[in-house]
Amino acid sequence: MSLSAVLRSGMVGKGRQPVNYDTALDTALGRLHSEGRYRTFIDIERRRGNFPHAVWKKPDGTEQGITVWCGNDYLGMGQHPVVLSAMHEALEATGAGSGGTRNISGTTVYHKRLEAELSDLHGKEAALVFTSAYIANDATLSTLPLLFPGLIIYSDELNHASMIEGIRRNGGSKRIFKHNDLKDLRAKLAADDPAAPKLIAFESVYSMDGDFGPIAEIVALAEEFGALTYLDEVHAVGMYGPRGGGVAEKLGLMDRIDIINGTLGKAYGVMGGYIAASAKMCDAVRSYAPGFIFTTSIPPAVAAGAAASVRHLKTDQSLRDLHQERAKVLKLRLKGMGLPIIDHGSHIVPVIVGDPVHTKKISDMLLTEFGIYVQPINYPTVPRGTERLRFTPSPVHDPRSMDALVHAMDALWSHCALNRAEMSA
Amino acid sequence: MSLSAVLRSGMVGKGRQPVNYDTALDTALGRLHSEGRYRTFIDIERRRGNFPHAVWKKPDGTEQGITVWCGNDYLGMGQHPVVLSAMHEALEATGAGSGGTRNISGTTVYHKRLEAELSDLHGKEAALVFTSAYIANDATLSTLPLLFPGLIIYSDELNHASMIEGIRRNGGSKRIFKHNDLKDLRAKLAADDPAAPKLIAFESVYSMDGDFGPIAEIVALAEEFGALTYLDEVHAVGMYGPRGGGVAEKLGLMDRIDIINGTLGKAYGVMGGYIAASAKMCDAVRSYAPGFIFTTSIPPAVAAGAAASVRHLKTDQSLRDLHQERAKVLKLRLKGMGLPIIDHGSHIVPVIVGDPVHTKKISDMLLTEFGIYVQPINYPTVPRGTERLRFTPSPVHDPRSMDALVHAMDALWSHCALNRAEMSA
Repeated sequence: MSLSAVLRSGMVGKGRQPVNYDTALDTALGRLHSEGRYRTFIDIERRRGNFPHAVWKKPDGTEQGITVWCGNDYLGMGQHPVVLSAMHEALEATGAGSGGTRNISGTTVYHKRLEAELSDLHGKEAALVFTSAYIANDATLSTLPLLFPGLIIYSDELNHASMIEGIRRNGGSKRIFKHNDLKDLRAKLAADDPAAPKLIAFESVYSMDGDFGPIAEIVALAEEFGALTYLDEVHAVGMYGPRGGGVAEKLGLMDRIDIINGTLGKAYGVMGGYIAASAKMCDAVRSYAPGFIFTTSIPPAVAAGAAASVRHLKTDQSLRDLHQERAKVLKLRLKGMGLPIIDHGSHIVPVIVGDPVHTKKISDMLLTEFGIYVQPINYPTVPRGTERLRFTPSPVHDPRSMDALVHAMDALWSHCALNRAEMSA
Repeated sequence: MSLSAVLRSGMVGKGRQPVNYDTALDTALGRLHSEGRYRTFIDIERRRGNFPHAVWKKPDGTEQGITVWCGNDYLGMGQHPVVLSAMHEALEATGAGSGGTRNISGTTVYHKRLEAELSDLHGKEAALVFTSAYIANDATLSTLPLLFPGLIIYSDELNHASMIEGIRRNGGSKRIFKHNDLKDLRAKLAADDPAAPKLIAFESVYSMDGDFGPIAEIVALAEEFGALTYLDEVHAVGMYGPRGGGVAEKLGLMDRIDIINGTLGKAYGVMGGYIAASAKMCDAVRSYAPGFIFTTSIPPAVAAGAAASVRHLKTDQSLRDLHQERAKVLKLRLKGMGLPIIDHGSHIVPVIVGDPVHTKKISDMLLTEFGIYVQPINYPTVPRGTERLRFTPSPVHDPRSMDALVHAMDALWSHCALNRAEMSA
């Protein structure tokens, strides 16, 4: 009996317990709903020249003007004329996509220029551009154990999902050390075979609390124990350091970091990610990482826009200063009202609500009643009991926008009878 | 003694066997050189309106005009006016990047429109756009075992690296079946617990030989054994089917595939990847896949260009016809000269050289002497002894370009005293 005949005869799955895939999906989705963790996309359209303002397209089809307070275009570079004109020009000159992987017709002069801009930014011999910083982390960290057999990776417990995925992928040895805990890291380094190759993976700015990694101390430990260092600077490049090289540049430590990971999609306002390292390291990663080899390279126009943005921010210190100032003012004003904010001196402003339902409710009210868009951050992105709103003030958030935000928060805090100050860090 | 004091005292690594990371990199890179598998980027710049012609920027800084014969912009959509104007407009309206992840300020009307275009293309309830088809495969296939506990994935042995990575990632159960071998697949399905959730993952066009997967037969097997189906159509979308929905559309089988994976970076000429599936399936994947959740969404301009390309190719059958015709003519002409080509009736034209050194040499001579750019394809991308050149003729490769290619191949084949015909499939 042919297969199709089997099908026609209605014997499909006969005598077999049919698997109910639909029920399994219901279960998976139901879990999120019951825990208050189901996420709904907020459909927006930013207007160039008018950042951080945007239009919210509601589910019912109507529109409302809003101000985005939770974006990662930290400096507003996504609307900067140098970025946009570089992109228009590249589109005009060379077309839409790259047409191939980096090895098969997808390496263009735009990619090369961007990598040159990035290696110069970090004072490294080379840089390697990936389709995202997520894949740069994932692909690099999963490839390093192939290059250094027996490698043990020491990973900060609050590292980003993309680092965790990369470290997990190939089943190499890993040690998770307590967040920013040098004693714990030292103990773990000391407990392992001194002859084993080692790598410490951590971040310069942790995006949920906005706290800094102890770069100098970790670099010193790495040197003491002969470990390589891998530093994720995605929430710092463009924003810290005299040329935007990140916190490691600000502290004069770039040359003591082996691999720096950065993004072109946050402060640089475009898309893509990269690593900067020695020429040999980049050569080996590009030669062995499937996540680099087997994927279409970023569009030349995206590479051109990113390169223009990186170049611009090497000299525009005023944007960085304004960014820090806006963050400082917002924190002062929210603190002044007694709101429980976390302040580690970075540009990220988390306000703790401490309950997923309240957080979601305040976020909804800010959006619908005040036209202020800030996404609620719940477990598992942050620990339960620390659910929060995470504000990202930027140079394009002018004093009037900030007034509106501060007044709305004040009104809602009173309306919801939330505590003030006591959770402040 | 403080850490920095330790460093200053020169006690670094004292009493420890220092790990020589540099030597490890040399070893990894040396392996590639000695096997003739070390890859060098060819640095090019395509000229819009003049595809497939481009400028090759040589390592010594000089330039040479070339014709790209190995790109994946299969239909030349990367220079199509509808794509470019959609991108220019979106750039102008909304700026460079999206400014966030899909859940945090990075869902725009452009992303929604693109997903609507794609779900319509495949006749599915929903679609989900990822930063690449690589990450769409990796993220989806690694997430499905979380949604369907105990899932067994049956994977064609020639599946793309991104599928392999996704299937491997979470250590779920997998069975690798022989390429396109229905008997082997059936035996493996039959050997497992009938009550276990199952998924068959395969491709519609395998890009190295250009052969087709037996979609109808696999779908029938899946239905018989109660398995889900996952079909990678990256080398088919835009090019096959009356609306460009791929080989499954051409065969009237789209509604019997559970998850279709496609790319926006090949025939559609831009960048990005996606899955199309039921609303529930897409909802669960977007809710659970770290590779979707924790990454900046594609730039609105990229989404706009891709949507315009998908929309255009729903009706422009002439481009698809011309594409097939050009592939047919090239295969006929190369066959006529007795060259060992593989012909499975698809648009991909592999010419077997059968030796890595010869393949590289012919590729180099084509580039430098004839201005014809075709990348050598070596092990492990293809089995040893089947090293090849892989040509991708397209509607923009006019008869004159084809003449030049055919004459160059004829001359080189004689010059290198390579066999004719005997390896032809």
